[in-house]
Amino acid sequence: MGSTSRTETFPAHTPAASQIFTTVLSHGPLTRLDAARRAGLSAAAVTKAVRPLLEAGYLVEDADEAARPALGRPANLVRVDGGRALFVGVKVTGDEIIGVLTDLCCRIRLARRVPLTDRATRAVLASAAGLVQELRAGADDLGVAVLGLGIAVSGDVDRAEGVVRYSPFLEWRDVPLAELAAMTTGLPVTLDNDVRALTIAEQWFGAGVGLSDFAVVTVGAGIGCALVVHGQVVAGAHGVAGEIGHVAIDPAGPPCHCGNRGCVEAIAGDAAIVARMREVTGRPVADTAEAVALAHQGVAGAREVYARAGEAIGRGIATVANLLGPERVIISGEGLTAYDLFAEQIRDSFGAAAFGSAAQCDVQTRPLPFEEWARGAAAAAIQSFITSTPTHRPGKG
Amino acid sequence: MGSTSRTETFPAHTPAASQIFTTVLSHGPLTRLDAARRAGLSAAAVTKAVRPLLEAGYLVEDADEAARPALGRPANLVRVDGGRALFVGVKVTGDEIIGVLTDLCCRIRLARRVPLTDRATRAVLASAAGLVQELRAGADDLGVAVLGLGIAVSGDVDRAEGVVRYSPFLEWRDVPLAELAAMTTGLPVTLDNDVRALTIAEQWFGAGVGLSDFAVVTVGAGIGCALVVHGQVVAGAHGVAGEIGHVAIDPAGPPCHCGNRGCVEAIAGDAAIVARMREVTGRPVADTAEAVALAHQGVAGAREVYARAGEAIGRGIATVANLLGPERVIISGEGLTAYDLFAEQIRDSFGAAAFGSAAQCDVQTRPLPFEEWARGAAAAAIQSFITSTPTHRPGKG
Ligand SMILES: [Zn+2]
Ligand SMILES: [Zn+2]
Repeated sequence: MGSTSRTETFPAHTPAASQIFTTVLSHGPLTRLDAARRAGLSAAAVTKAVRPLLEAGYLVEDADEAARPALGRPANLVRVDGGRALFVGVKVTGDEIIGVLTDLCCRIRLARRVPLTDRATRAVLASAAGLVQELRAGADDLGVAVLGLGIAVSGDVDRAEGVVRYSPFLEWRDVPLAELAAMTTGLPVTLDNDVRALTIAEQWFGAGVGLSDFAVVTVGAGIGCALVVHGQVVAGAHGVAGEIGHVAIDPAGPPCHCGNRGCVEAIAGDAAIVARMREVTGRPVADTAEAVALAHQGVAGAREVYARAGEAIGRGIATVANLLGPERVIISGEGLTAYDLFAEQIRDSFGAAAFGSAAQCDVQTRPLPFEEWARGAAAAAIQSFITSTPTHRPGKG
Repeated sequence: MGSTSRTETFPAHTPAASQIFTTVLSHGPLTRLDAARRAGLSAAAVTKAVRPLLEAGYLVEDADEAARPALGRPANLVRVDGGRALFVGVKVTGDEIIGVLTDLCCRIRLARRVPLTDRATRAVLASAAGLVQELRAGADDLGVAVLGLGIAVSGDVDRAEGVVRYSPFLEWRDVPLAELAAMTTGLPVTLDNDVRALTIAEQWFGAGVGLSDFAVVTVGAGIGCALVVHGQVVAGAHGVAGEIGHVAIDPAGPPCHCGNRGCVEAIAGDAAIVARMREVTGRPVADTAEAVALAHQGVAGAREVYARAGEAIGRGIATVANLLGPERVIISGEGLTAYDLFAEQIRDSFGAAAFGSAAQCDVQTRPLPFEEWARGAAAAAIQSFITSTPTHRPGKG
């Protein structure tokens, strides 16, 4: 395909080495001493771990001129050379594919979107491959190799196996997407659930840096959630975790596509809001943009639809807080465009339903466009690269 | 006080050594190779870790006669010498204190109960000290030192600080119980929430052995829960976690003491069941024993009270499963005496509310008397001993 496709492995051969690199990646630049302290390792372990990483150019060490003492040498700072390697992250929605090219520090260098007109596996794969090819052409221009591809899909995704078990928006069941994408692109592929991928980006590069326990809740077509507990994203023993959308909060609530009643998603998901808006206003509301407009126009009952959605989301977040006591909950997702319509209700119902000091949890919002979700997929690929655990390598079959 | 009170520290000075010991404790006897494999460490690391533990008598190694090969030496097995050290575990309820003397393998050697007539801190401390003294006399008879004391209290307990932040049943707020008990008994003290302590016992010695993600749900005066995620008990960033009792499942449900409506505990806790039973039957029901009797007698409406409680518990467990996807949920607590009255409803409502493969979670019941909760406190003390992290040591102040 004309792209640089050499396979490169990361020279961190122990968990300690991966950990040091990750620490510098999230918190750097750091002195070796600070890196050791933060990672809970000895200075000797750090020295041993950083040597091959410096030699291979993934880390660089230079004098901290800003902290130059009056006499003597300035302290050296270790940092990641972001330009050393590039990654591609792709987020697949029901309507389009969003791709980004990032550097090793997960900074976006290029971003592209292609519409999706056909949701069949073959068509999605072809569109994604085209997008990846375009981004790799950009990498070629930079003269840096792309070392991994991350793919994020909503639904029940088995990262370890690289399989989309069930995606409601794509109407896929048991698609071995990582293997197919590795064959098509020739890149090592990491496949993950889209909210979990976004959460990895937040954990390593965003509002979750330094937190061992936090949650990301996404509001939009679905109500998603990923949980970080003890510093790791929760995957669930049977592949299901973070299903805040199907936490049932009202046995008298509307029916949900999962078969239950009163799930958070059945009240606060896009389809639920549009359906309820039609009921309440008697108008042929086509989508959330129209629903938001009606609420902003002050049409009778329209604001209450959002108020009820906000209350449901707040109760769902309180349930997460009562069970796990996270330090922070980050609310994001395309549904945030209506945030002014339900922010107050989220806050109030969270406060009312949080138990005791669980209410101290810092609930904040982060508007993150789909490019950031694609960046999450790149973060998952970077994570796999650093820990040498991509789901599928080309030729692995 | 006449008891042996020498302070002894555990000769495992690295996380790897604690881990190897814990592995042998939970899974032993094991060959060194098996121990290394299970702990994910090298054979050299195991050899280095076990030497001081063998020398100090915490581990013993002997030939596996059962596996003697036809020719040559039998493989050696490493196991913990349970009799090497003793621990005391105490569970404080609103009505009594239950204490056990256990060995290092958390096997109960002695058990004692004393009624609690006064819930003032000083009175509880004096009763507990008397109980501990009695159990230590038993240890003296065995000629083995007691190396730690674990105390389990329900409510909001800060293990790291050794403080009971809030105990509804004792009506305590901010009591530095670990420090007070260390001063009174002269033993290193570990204080923990009672359900978390029970969960440590299950994780190391019970139905949670070998599972990295499971939950314990306790049914009784309160509806409690402790969660093990990624192999560690979840403590919560602000001290609150596992509050399944205050997961609100019905906005139209009965008011809860926490200020909300329709919490699981407001439907399925002992007080809720008794109150509802009075309402439904019009009889002066005094306690759960009478409530159970009415249901067993087939008094009109009595069974429905339990059915509703079971449904609430099942929904609470489904919420845990949907968010965390544990491998197993262990239901226990004194409320299990009524289990025949709501087992079916727990199972049915869990099955209905669990999302997708989260329903594969193995929900099982384990009737555990209060002595097992006291054993949980001893397990917490053993854990602190092994990792050298008791909350308070005598004289530490
Ligand atoms: Zn649902
Ligand atoms: Zn409550």
